Amino acid sequence: MNTVERVEKGAAAAAAFLGVTKAARDSALDLIAERLIQARPDIEKANIADITAAEASGLPGPLLKRLAFSGTKIDDSIEGIRALRRLPDPLGRVLEARLLDEGLILRRVSCPIGLVAMIFESRPDALVQMACLAAKSGNAIVLKGGSEALTTNRVLVCVIAAAGEEAGLPKDWLTALETRAEIGELLDLDQYVDLVIPRGSKEFVARIKATSRIPVLGHSDGVCHVYLHEDADPEMAKAIVLDSKTQYPAVCNAAEVLLVHRAYAEQHILPLLQALAAKGVYLDLCPRSVSLLEASRGAGIHYSIKTDENWSIEYLDLRMAVKIVDSLDAAISHINRYGSGHTDAIVSASGEAARRFMTGVDSADVFHNASTRFSDGYRFGLGAEVGISTGKLHARGPMGLEGLTTYKWLLEGSGQIVADYASGGKSFVHRDLPLDAGRE
Amino acid sequence: MNTVERVEKGAAAAAAFLGVTKAARDSALDLIAERLIQARPDIEKANIADITAAEASGLPGPLLKRLAFSGTKIDDSIEGIRALRRLPDPLGRVLEARLLDEGLILRRVSCPIGLVAMIFESRPDALVQMACLAAKSGNAIVLKGGSEALTTNRVLVCVIAAAGEEAGLPKDWLTALETRAEIGELLDLDQYVDLVIPRGSKEFVARIKATSRIPVLGHSDGVCHVYLHEDADPEMAKAIVLDSKTQYPAVCNAAEVLLVHRAYAEQHILPLLQALAAKGVYLDLCPRSVSLLEASRGAGIHYSIKTDENWSIEYLDLRMAVKIVDSLDAAISHINRYGSGHTDAIVSASGEAARRFMTGVDSADVFHNASTRFSDGYRFGLGAEVGISTGKLHARGPMGLEGLTTYKWLLEGSGQIVADYASGGKSFVHRDLPLDAGRE
Repeated sequence: MNTVERVEKGAAAAAAFLGVTKAARDSALDLIAERLIQARPDIEKANIADITAAEASGLPGPLLKRLAFSGTKIDDSIEGIRALRRLPDPLGRVLEARLLDEGLILRRVSCPIGLVAMIFESRPDALVQMACLAAKSGNAIVLKGGSEALTTNRVLVCVIAAAGEEAGLPKDWLTALETRAEIGELLDLDQYVDLVIPRGSKEFVARIKATSRIPVLGHSDGVCHVYLHEDADPEMAKAIVLDSKTQYPAVCNAAEVLLVHRAYAEQHILPLLQALAAKGVYLDLCPRSVSLLEASRGAGIHYSIKTDENWSIEYLDLRMAVKIVDSLDAAISHINRYGSGHTDAIVSASGEAARRFMTGVDSADVFHNASTRFSDGYRFGLGAEVGISTGKLHARGPMGLEGLTTYKWLLEGSGQIVADYASGGKSFVHRDLPLDAGRE
Repeated sequence: MNTVERVEKGAAAAAAFLGVTKAARDSALDLIAERLIQARPDIEKANIADITAAEASGLPGPLLKRLAFSGTKIDDSIEGIRALRRLPDPLGRVLEARLLDEGLILRRVSCPIGLVAMIFESRPDALVQMACLAAKSGNAIVLKGGSEALTTNRVLVCVIAAAGEEAGLPKDWLTALETRAEIGELLDLDQYVDLVIPRGSKEFVARIKATSRIPVLGHSDGVCHVYLHEDADPEMAKAIVLDSKTQYPAVCNAAEVLLVHRAYAEQHILPLLQALAAKGVYLDLCPRSVSLLEASRGAGIHYSIKTDENWSIEYLDLRMAVKIVDSLDAAISHINRYGSGHTDAIVSASGEAARRFMTGVDSADVFHNASTRFSDGYRFGLGAEVGISTGKLHARGPMGLEGLTTYKWLLEGSGQIVADYASGGKSFVHRDLPLDAGRE
């Protein structure tokens, strides 16, 4: 079967999925968990084969670690499925309800998107998670995992697809592609595929975005800022900067650039930079902050003078750029120009400054007096995290299951025709109804 | 100034627009209305020049009519601006609010999308409407109108842009392109333009969709269906079919295909087709309906036998395709295969059949016992209509001002850092808050 045929079958499955009940989706998740437990020996055997081959080919240690799928990693995946099962149904939620006229009720109701393509590098646990997110949200799915994990992924796809079908999900609700060439073909099939969700390195996601005609949900860069306003509390500022930069520097919501108001910098920049240096952070300092540092003889701080204007570097490491700005507006402009629209924070005692910052910064997540590291689906209380989007349409910032749904408008009438309203014989009432009254 | 420079300025204006107050947006709409009234002589003079040139070049009558912009058409535009001004602010609405922990409040708040490109054929009134929708929703806008209306559009753009700036909107909040070549350049600038909204003929919209790398909001086809279930009430069925087909056949929400359950057709198809014929509707009948018609000697009905499988024709005229189906499921499959995902209706006495139809049909609008013609922003009570989308992401079906907004996540803390939660020292509360408590 070629890629087009596979994807066509996936699209047919997406249409059939609309008629699948919540009970079937729930029992699919139960059965997938059960069958994965039963298949554990096969999965671990396949995974050892992948790891052996990867070691022989010289795959670096961190990637080998991501490839491993056994023991507690499988336990965690199973627990993840059970937690997903307990989340409220993302489908059939009434988002809007309005009485248009006597006996004519309009409801906007959440429903599946259709056929979602999920493309990711190695990590077999991501395959399990994404397949289950799709089952929960009623979407058919085309998966493409990393080639290093091919043997493991084949076992997982086989077990999960069969368990889903046995529980009543449509045939072909889960299909898999295996080669990189197939991704290219897939990304052209915008008549069948409604959404692409890539997961992997920044370069990987950027490449998918640049290639696809289908909407892509995700983010490539996380160039996050912390801005210290002139009236920031020094202790709070230090705690937030250290947490944003050093609590877990390798992830997208870690801060990369520190912007400091001139007046704050003159008073407080030395102890702040010392604290960063003490945590092992290497600093790229703007010339103005170097002057302040040298004036106060900041010892033991490793830094270089930043002479270029490249303020969009995502270090993902214990390294941070520092720039002194003259005003709140300059900070906002800098962020909108060089940031990636992911997460940016202000530390300030002033509610008015915070309001201006939060309104003016054009990013998915804008925080006041809190670490950028809070930008995360679980911390936001979204239940599951489908991903973080830096696009502005459909979903922005951390996405829960809602990111895998769209809506349709359902109108319940009793024989109404437009001619009666056009003639003036009848007129619209347009009265909003409580949402729970519309709950099916 | 070339296209890239213009669009760059538009993107800068979009960022500056974030800091503009509601008061400034409101007074911009007031001032635009006022200045248009003052400029009426200039507008009418420019419009006469366009019409004269168009007549000389042999533009067909209906297009000339769309090009005209004077007298009551200007009055209607002004009234439209005043009505828009009275609508609630689409920005700053709290869509979600959650207490993450003591003193750590998360809100999801509506905000502008950024830079929106609006491309349309002739109709100067559309230019006025779109510019004002952008002003109301805080979006910067790049406009491209029809070339026949160039002189009129220049006056309108000049008056509207200046009035907006005078009221406090950012410089370059409204810019205009004038040539077709510029559209091609514009559609490549996905780093600056967030959304494209085309308005015009089906072919025009389809061409924009096929060319753009930027998300396109709109619809090209409206292949809408009415399905008569076996238990449909014959009087209601007739009224809904006639209204859906004939009340205004030239528009996208008019029905093009009638699907009839076999059992219903055997009893009731003759009077129904006679009623359509009496309204001047030419019928493309499937062979099975022809057999029924001939068996009952249906006289005076103009039809042809539909032998092909092309069920996706958008007639936009007094013509309708008719197909007999064996079941509800067959109707759903037909619609999902041949429809355009716009609007489809079922007529049935059974709530269960309606529920299955409304769940199974993958369209923006799915109606039960109501005419397809209700699919419209004003009839839905959305206030303004930005357009109708057949895409599944961001906005689906009739769009109000909400279609011109996105959201951002705002987190208000008091110094919280993630390390405290990662260590287990603190834990999240995740309690949903009432939305009005978060209203700014």
